[in-house]
Amino acid sequence: MRIGLIGYGYWGPNILRNLVAHTDAEVAIVADQKLERLAALKKVYPAVRTTTDANEVTEAKDIDAVIVATPVQTHYSLARAALLSGKHVLVEKPLADSLKGAEELVALAAEKKLMLMIDHTYLYTGAVEVMKRVIDSGEIGVLQSFSSTRFNLGLFQGDVNVLWDLAPHDLSILLHLIGRMPTLVNAVGVSHTGNNIENIAYLTLRYDDGMIAHIGASWVSPVKIRQMLISGDKKMIVFDDTEAIEKVKIYESGYTVRTDEDKRRLYMDYRSGDIHIPNVGNKEALQGVVEDFIHAVSKGSTPRSDAHFGLNVVRVLDAAERSLREGGAEVRLS
Amino acid sequence: MRIGLIGYGYWGPNILRNLVAHTDAEVAIVADQKLERLAALKKVYPAVRTTTDANEVTEAKDIDAVIVATPVQTHYSLARAALLSGKHVLVEKPLADSLKGAEELVALAAEKKLMLMIDHTYLYTGAVEVMKRVIDSGEIGVLQSFSSTRFNLGLFQGDVNVLWDLAPHDLSILLHLIGRMPTLVNAVGVSHTGNNIENIAYLTLRYDDGMIAHIGASWVSPVKIRQMLISGDKKMIVFDDTEAIEKVKIYESGYTVRTDEDKRRLYMDYRSGDIHIPNVGNKEALQGVVEDFIHAVSKGSTPRSDAHFGLNVVRVLDAAERSLREGGAEVRLS
Amino acid sequence: MRIGLIGYGYWGPNILRNLVAHTDAEVAIVADQKLERLAALKKVYPAVRTTTDANEVTEAKDIDAVIVATPVQTHYSLARAALLSGKHVLVEKPLADSLKGAEELVALAAEKKLMLMIDHTYLYTGAVEVMKRVIDSGEIGVLQSFSSTRFNLGLFQGDVNVLWDLAPHDLSILLHLIGRMPTLVNAVGVSHTGNNIENIAYLTLRYDDGMIAHIGASWVSPVKIRQMLISGDKKMIVFDDTEAIEKVKIYESGYTVRTDEDKRRLYMDYRSGDIHIPNVGNKEALQGVVEDFIHAVSKGSTPRSDAHFGLNVVRVLDAAERSLREGGAEVRLS
Amino acid sequence: MRIGLIGYGYWGPNILRNLVAHTDAEVAIVADQKLERLAALKKVYPAVRTTTDANEVTEAKDIDAVIVATPVQTHYSLARAALLSGKHVLVEKPLADSLKGAEELVALAAEKKLMLMIDHTYLYTGAVEVMKRVIDSGEIGVLQSFSSTRFNLGLFQGDVNVLWDLAPHDLSILLHLIGRMPTLVNAVGVSHTGNNIENIAYLTLRYDDGMIAHIGASWVSPVKIRQMLISGDKKMIVFDDTEAIEKVKIYESGYTVRTDEDKRRLYMDYRSGDIHIPNVGNKEALQGVVEDFIHAVSKGSTPRSDAHFGLNVVRVLDAAERSLREGGAEVRLS
Repeated sequence: MRIGLIGYGYWGPNILRNLVAHTDAEVAIVADQKLERLAALKKVYPAVRTTTDANEVTEAKDIDAVIVATPVQTHYSLARAALLSGKHVLVEKPLADSLKGAEELVALAAEKKLMLMIDHTYLYTGAVEVMKRVIDSGEIGVLQSFSSTRFNLGLFQGDVNVLWDLAPHDLSILLHLIGRMPTLVNAVGVSHTGNNIENIAYLTLRYDDGMIAHIGASWVSPVKIRQMLISGDKKMIVFDDTEAIEKVKIYESGYTVRTDEDKRRLYMDYRSGDIHIPNVGNKEALQGVVEDFIHAVSKGSTPRSDAHFGLNVVRVLDAAERSLREGGAEVRLS
Repeated sequence: MRIGLIGYGYWGPNILRNLVAHTDAEVAIVADQKLERLAALKKVYPAVRTTTDANEVTEAKDIDAVIVATPVQTHYSLARAALLSGKHVLVEKPLADSLKGAEELVALAAEKKLMLMIDHTYLYTGAVEVMKRVIDSGEIGVLQSFSSTRFNLGLFQGDVNVLWDLAPHDLSILLHLIGRMPTLVNAVGVSHTGNNIENIAYLTLRYDDGMIAHIGASWVSPVKIRQMLISGDKKMIVFDDTEAIEKVKIYESGYTVRTDEDKRRLYMDYRSGDIHIPNVGNKEALQGVVEDFIHAVSKGSTPRSDAHFGLNVVRVLDAAERSLREGGAEVRLS
Repeated sequence: MRIGLIGYGYWGPNILRNLVAHTDAEVAIVADQKLERLAALKKVYPAVRTTTDANEVTEAKDIDAVIVATPVQTHYSLARAALLSGKHVLVEKPLADSLKGAEELVALAAEKKLMLMIDHTYLYTGAVEVMKRVIDSGEIGVLQSFSSTRFNLGLFQGDVNVLWDLAPHDLSILLHLIGRMPTLVNAVGVSHTGNNIENIAYLTLRYDDGMIAHIGASWVSPVKIRQMLISGDKKMIVFDDTEAIEKVKIYESGYTVRTDEDKRRLYMDYRSGDIHIPNVGNKEALQGVVEDFIHAVSKGSTPRSDAHFGLNVVRVLDAAERSLREGGAEVRLS
Repeated sequence: MRIGLIGYGYWGPNILRNLVAHTDAEVAIVADQKLERLAALKKVYPAVRTTTDANEVTEAKDIDAVIVATPVQTHYSLARAALLSGKHVLVEKPLADSLKGAEELVALAAEKKLMLMIDHTYLYTGAVEVMKRVIDSGEIGVLQSFSSTRFNLGLFQGDVNVLWDLAPHDLSILLHLIGRMPTLVNAVGVSHTGNNIENIAYLTLRYDDGMIAHIGASWVSPVKIRQMLISGDKKMIVFDDTEAIEKVKIYESGYTVRTDEDKRRLYMDYRSGDIHIPNVGNKEALQGVVEDFIHAVSKGSTPRSDAHFGLNVVRVLDAAERSLREGGAEVRLS
């Protein structure tokens, strides 16, 4: 399988390194607008063709698939061009910067019978894999809440706000773990840069069954926080991605609600038991992404973050955007 | 100064212990509905009168002041009775369980020329005192964001939701540090107990100048979190109340926004410098509350958390309640 | 059972509180040299007799047992007087400040058929109880190493060095968990106070089977450290007593040694698996001490830290003292 | 300046990467016994000559300097060969596996007027640079104690024990920060692998002025510990190398000793103040090593870890070895 890569900035070199390490893949061509990046690439991988023109990649005759690792606002047009040119596509998260664009891409891929996969890298981390197993086993019980904080200082984006930039990580984990969409979306945020691009925002999702999910996203924090709390009615999980070893902790903690006979007063029994820290290994997640994509293209399997999955993430982001514009009012997802 | 205390449950014994240690105060009478609590009190403080009837306290002839340490829904009626009976009042936070009730109490105290103070204990902690000094010094710069998480497992309240129960802590710190009220309030939450009393809720406050404050409150969390992040445009603060020593950290971190000549593109310069951890001491905060109350009553000074301060906290809670009922829509504070 | 207490300084009030809470015990008399301490005691427990003369306690006719909670150098004479006067004795750790004294006390108690117990409080903590269970179950495998660090700033003692002051905690845990005595003892230390009383010292114990134990003790540290690492050939334990919740962690980590055919080269297989954090509860350890003592006296049972156990701790301390005086040379325990 | 590198295992590739990035250095030839390592090298750096014969490097005519990045027991012979062949030498720590060998190398380099530098990488970390500045400023006061723990699971060495393997890190930091040699050395350890190579060992160094240093080294620990506590009589330092950001903390903590008039009793005043966390940056330490070596060779400057510095580290290790063989007895350094 021969692959073309568009974008050799922050994430592109990591993708290339993982492609090169994969026995069934060959990288034929890489595009980036900056010549110095292409020169750096040439030093290490002299056999790879380079270009500053993304069209050369999407239209290359000798490749089967295109990987799009460029800024968000270009995802739609580049993925569209690649699909139109008959290539399978792996695109960075989020799939597109608008719901309309994302829907078009999904429809186009279906029509052309081409693979369209989104690089929601977190789904391939040992931590998320362990949490998925634990939740699917029923050990956690009925899920009641999900609270994620993704704060850091820096890397303000110029084209999309902090929710479009950071929340796809949390949303992809949430949707993967829970397996279903919320009903109501609220988002509130603020821009401190005078360009109406929110740099701090809070997103709340409510499900019909009482499940609530909350995501705090900020480019302006004194400390880096990557913490996720997940509560079921039997056990609870903490995922702290800033920890080197103890990333996932499973708490035998919870509460049981009792009522007295006339059901007027509630009594709570709290329990707090052992904590278990599963070994999540240290496989590079991006390796899993690349393997899943190559396998999906070559074998026709469905990748973990396929086009519909990526579209659902954009659906929530689109609803969040509308709520932001309406001062945080709830937006109902159809 | 002679004092009566109503409520000897969780917080009452701590108040009593601090009153007893104060040279200018004498506790004459204590009321609680549970006889076993009064018996326990008698063992340690045999000279204190006890009663199961709160009216005996509010109407006692030999006391100057009443301290109300009872569940929230009783604050209004007990504080009102004490004020009507000519007593100065220190009431647990929040001042009352409704805006109307809180306003009435404030008006009544003013009319009667009696001290009405609210026990916002956090304002008397070394940590908040240090943060107040640092912020007032201008060292932090223009405040841009405040994000507080107050999560734990347990102590579900039966009469008020998690915002009325926990957020007064964060709101009192916020209002004390910032010194002004927000304009817009959003709140979203969920009840998992079938009684419409939210056990998880998220509160967002926006100020006219772009400052944003966010408070997450939960009775359902695998871990106890008491973390507050405050960002100014010069420095940033983290206050972690679960830390024994390193409670307050001041980060010489921040960013500066530059634009290019045609102001179309923003550039960010990030800086990340030293961290300073001021010694916050280990004085018991409640001792400061008691001293401030006694001083205010005897000297006519204004306590840190006076009636108007406590009313402002209730104003925000009332707006949050209205937003909760409207699905998280923004509520404008007048 | 009626009890007399000698010493109402730092630890005495905790002992008294736990005695008062015990249904089968009554505290008849308390001695302390400082009148203000006795006055404070009288306020809370008016029915207890007080005295500044320890002899009044050891000779009191109306008591069955004496608890000695005084500085180390007085343990021997007070415990001796109490035993001679026919009282059962619970003495603070270490049993005595010399091996000779400790041996005398043990012999005297045996001769008089009186209970002599040492308050090695740590043995009654949930953390040590859990570790004991885990080790006894065989889960950890053959124990290979024990490394404990007990550092803090302050509380320099004037009569005994830092090993006699702090190491009894670690030694009691070690001897309780391992159940046997080391063969070789080395100790090195330093005094910074010009009085030849070491304020920093390191103690190493070696067992015949290759087990090594190390204890670092310091009154001069910027941070408080209470960390113990225990390695078996199957699993490993970390006990961090400064943690509020995660005190004991059990690591499924270890290594296996392989050799090649001619046994000339060693190969190591390392494994690193899950971590388990047992809930250690939050029972007050001193309550267990008091219960064990009262039970032992009234029922004739053997308490966890009986006279022989306490003597073994002193044996190691005595050997350590000799090694300290010989520049750290190894001292063989008989 | 043209350089040859011997050893392309764990550390060699890092050295090569830093050499390649240096504008004044060119790597001509690399030797390693494993062909697959050389093949991997060739892929990335096709222009570099490779060989399995280390002699080809030491005798290469076109190079000025040799870097030795091989196991400890080969340092002496390789460095000697390189010096005899007229090359400047940078050798991995420790300089040699025997005091005699180290002394010979130092003498040989002096005789040949060649640079002999040891790669004590830690000296070039931001953390050590900051601590050096702070200590040299006098802010810490008179140094009293240094306590370092270097524990981890794994990487048992087959040729040298855990002290020769790990303690050079701590010793180099200690000697660099303190600037003088200890007088007395004690070491105790144990081997669990049946080959008399200690895998856990404790090293204590005492200075004439009362300063004490302690180093715990272990290949058998459930957790990775890289913690160093340094106490002066004015302030104290904690260096925790497992921390990503807060590596160095300076504590305004300490104590003052007072005596009463007849000097019979000591009184201690403890103080505990603010904590300061200097930003230590994130420059790669090895880059500093390479720059210092190239600068020293080309300009004749004295590198931070020159031959005499490296020899002092070996002197302490040699004394430690002798103490280990004598059951931990003190060994006096001449």
